Amino acid sequence: MSKSKGSRAERELLAMFWQNSYAGFRVAGSGSTPLPSPDLLVGNGKRYLAIECKSLKNKAKYLEEEQINELIEFANKFGAEPWIGLRFNNIGWYFIKPDKLEKTKNGSLIASLEFLKKEGLKFQDLIK
Amino acid sequence: MSKSKGSRAERELLAMFWQNSYAGFRVAGSGSTPLPSPDLLVGNGKRYLAIECKSLKNKAKYLEEEQINELIEFANKFGAEPWIGLRFNNIGWYFIKPDKLEKTKNGSLIASLEFLKKEGLKFQDLIK
Repeated sequence: MSKSKGSRAERELLAMFWQNSYAGFRVAGSGSTPLPSPDLLVGNGKRYLAIECKSLKNKAKYLEEEQINELIEFANKFGAEPWIGLRFNNIGWYFIKPDKLEKTKNGSLIASLEFLKKEGLKFQDLIK
Repeated sequence: MSKSKGSRAERELLAMFWQNSYAGFRVAGSGSTPLPSPDLLVGNGKRYLAIECKSLKNKAKYLEEEQINELIEFANKFGAEPWIGLRFNNIGWYFIKPDKLEKTKNGSLIASLEFLKKEGLKFQDLIK
């Protein structure tokens, strides 16, 4: 996936949050943070969501366990819910908590459309 | 003030927060946010601070009222305390809430070292 495509997906999701009474922003890559930051951070005064965004061309994607662990660690320290947002081409966004992710037999984390349709949340359910 | 000097000040302040059990990051300039974002956002699971950073070569600086209003608006919507952080050369950081800022006779917002020494907070008091 190209970098610009990832940015486009992040901006799309961010706009969806603003349209639903959340304030938020994309996080700048930073050299001063011991823990890598999520892609998006949004809040509405009641909930705070730290979101790692992935844009998929295919129906499944392996996720890096280290990146997911850092998302959890950051979110816990900051005080936000950790979420992974996956955007499937021509289908849209699904969201899942890191601890709900599917593991392959050899222990790799994987996000598949099939699994997310059962276990993930659509945007409107995420913000409900 | 050069842009890089501003970034350096933001990174310095961000590191100070991380050293004091806050997680946070510098905010990316974004085209998808109706309200301009603060320079820094930090949280520790209890408090969330949205901070507009200013680095001063001199002992006083005029602030743009529109920028300050946008900080307040963003912070209210997101659910964070709005703060202005001012770094004075060779002296360090002072912090003040936007509604405590001094106004000149003709209504301009101004941040001066003299005023901040009385009405502002040092970093350790900010995070207390």
